[in-house]
Amino acid sequence: MKKVYLMTPGPTPVPDDVRLAEAKPIIHHRTPEFVEIYERVSEDLKLVFKTRNVVLTFLSSGTGAMEGAVANTLSPGDRALCITGGKFGERWSEICRAYGIEVVSLNVDWGDYARPEQVRQLLGQYPDIKAVFTALCETSTGTLFPIKEYGEIVRRRENTLLIVDAVSGLGACDLRTDEWAVDICVSGSQKGIMLPPGLAFASVSDKAWKFTETSTCPKYYFDFKKANKALEKRSPTAYTPGVSLVVALDKALSMLKGEGIDNVLERHAKLARATREGVKALGLTLFSKNPANAVTAIDIPPGIDGSALKNTLDKKYGVKVAGGQAHLKGKIIRIAHLGYMGQFDVITALSALELSLKDLGYGVILGKGVARAMEILK
Amino acid sequence: MKKVYLMTPGPTPVPDDVRLAEAKPIIHHRTPEFVEIYERVSEDLKLVFKTRNVVLTFLSSGTGAMEGAVANTLSPGDRALCITGGKFGERWSEICRAYGIEVVSLNVDWGDYARPEQVRQLLGQYPDIKAVFTALCETSTGTLFPIKEYGEIVRRRENTLLIVDAVSGLGACDLRTDEWAVDICVSGSQKGIMLPPGLAFASVSDKAWKFTETSTCPKYYFDFKKANKALEKRSPTAYTPGVSLVVALDKALSMLKGEGIDNVLERHAKLARATREGVKALGLTLFSKNPANAVTAIDIPPGIDGSALKNTLDKKYGVKVAGGQAHLKGKIIRIAHLGYMGQFDVITALSALELSLKDLGYGVILGKGVARAMEILK
Repeated sequence: MKKVYLMTPGPTPVPDDVRLAEAKPIIHHRTPEFVEIYERVSEDLKLVFKTRNVVLTFLSSGTGAMEGAVANTLSPGDRALCITGGKFGERWSEICRAYGIEVVSLNVDWGDYARPEQVRQLLGQYPDIKAVFTALCETSTGTLFPIKEYGEIVRRRENTLLIVDAVSGLGACDLRTDEWAVDICVSGSQKGIMLPPGLAFASVSDKAWKFTETSTCPKYYFDFKKANKALEKRSPTAYTPGVSLVVALDKALSMLKGEGIDNVLERHAKLARATREGVKALGLTLFSKNPANAVTAIDIPPGIDGSALKNTLDKKYGVKVAGGQAHLKGKIIRIAHLGYMGQFDVITALSALELSLKDLGYGVILGKGVARAMEILK
Repeated sequence: MKKVYLMTPGPTPVPDDVRLAEAKPIIHHRTPEFVEIYERVSEDLKLVFKTRNVVLTFLSSGTGAMEGAVANTLSPGDRALCITGGKFGERWSEICRAYGIEVVSLNVDWGDYARPEQVRQLLGQYPDIKAVFTALCETSTGTLFPIKEYGEIVRRRENTLLIVDAVSGLGACDLRTDEWAVDICVSGSQKGIMLPPGLAFASVSDKAWKFTETSTCPKYYFDFKKANKALEKRSPTAYTPGVSLVVALDKALSMLKGEGIDNVLERHAKLARATREGVKALGLTLFSKNPANAVTAIDIPPGIDGSALKNTLDKKYGVKVAGGQAHLKGKIIRIAHLGYMGQFDVITALSALELSLKDLGYGVILGKGVARAMEILK
């Protein structure tokens, strides 16, 4: 028997009650029973997104809704600004290029974030930019991007949308879709929403709906207008929805509502602070210049093999964390405190990290990180 | 307590063991454990498709893989032949048009199927047709289309693909992807595969891979080449897969393999025959000119209100069947014998049908349809 602790930034652990809801006997989707559930989750998602805009749900991973955000608002030849400081920022550029969008890249070092002034400057330089794409939390580096400040710049421009990837950020990092003027906010089910992978979400502002009227990119499965029309007609979806996942989503959202979304965010803030302080108490350094509350990226200390550390955590202690992606492979580990996570999950992670470092010969006083985290958590 | 019997042509009932597999604690997808499962299901799917081609799995409804089949092989301005005799045939045309494909429509009456000679003639008339799109089983009418015969025509043409929607047909109707020269065969999880909705499949022939080299339609989430590359690299997917659904798929496929795919098809053939004969014994008529083994469409007899019949079956007896779609609304009901179905499900359906007809004042000798079905089933 080896108990497994999933501490990756997606998929994240799914609460037992949510898994049991997912396992309920299947119901047909064109029934009043399912329509009622679908409409309830569509309303409840607005609380999590902090929006009065419609939130569309697609049966796909988050990437599908990201593609939809591009294909439904832009046209080939349009110009877009893609803010990139990690793997998921790069994804926006890739999707835009796949659709013939001219990409202006705002690249920052991985672990860093784009300063609002850089965004303002590029928008001044290219007045025809029709959309600014960014992540809220760049999962590959655990970095928070200042969406509020981007929103203040973009909201003044009638012909530019702010489109945010909040796949790993939603439910963990503060996000105020309406207050911050986010036109399309995309997320997925397997992170803060505490579901298995399979559902993608997109909130769509009035300003964004106007863009959909002129967009000529081809779209079918991820057609926002068609999805919205089906929801309005209480159909409730254009194509067969993920019935079992939607039923599970209903349960997960009732848990988040029960806790209160601001309490959920406060919990994540506390867990993140405890993790960061615990890590620093061990003499380790954080990779990100602006750490997000979803996941903590930690520099592999000199003399330690990053893969060996990740493997020890996994194979010896059953603690599954993420390594670095692309050029960060072997250079960082990422410990998530995202979704269905409580204070003792942070203690477990730090405890396993200390033991693993000790195993690998790194000078660590056992319990030092844990003790520091407990001070924060108490 | 009212026991519910789901007899719709998708979603179909999910076996308990499959639902419990779906409810297992979530595992990360970039792990040897998940790669092993993913590779096993990818191989097992080949048995169901009767193909040696790769079978790609997407996290979406079947429609997503249909869109992928168009976007990965064709280019705007290409010409395609879309065989249409129902709602899902129409979907091929809609997707093609969304991508700027010139559609030649071969429309037959709903309930009928296109004769191979009609296909041959249109291909002669338009030598530049690059793909022929059809359904195996047109779900909206319960009609089987002669894929083998279409394949004999299309396989001779180097520059034309045969692309088949087997969403509701797979695992119920005979389908021999390789023997019949089907270049892309698309299916979904919530039908014969006995899973909830959420996974879509596409087998891709060597001939079809050649088409992907020249296709200029934009694609990202449903990029076949990227999906195949990820599978080859044992990544195993380009984007986050539907972990819980894939784990459930592994269980479902082990059940289908255990029974043997030809036995599965024979079971469906028998259930379909029993349903058809039972219905006819009641003096009712079948809607389809070539009934498929997945679902039986029955004409609503004169003097009976189609909606009332469907409602009585549902509300009074807990038997959920499908009605007609589009112009067939209120004119037919469709009873599925698809997926996790045994002989007593057919008996249940016919028994409830008899009782409901009696309730609505239709002259029926109770047990007559059931008795006839039992003769077939024994």
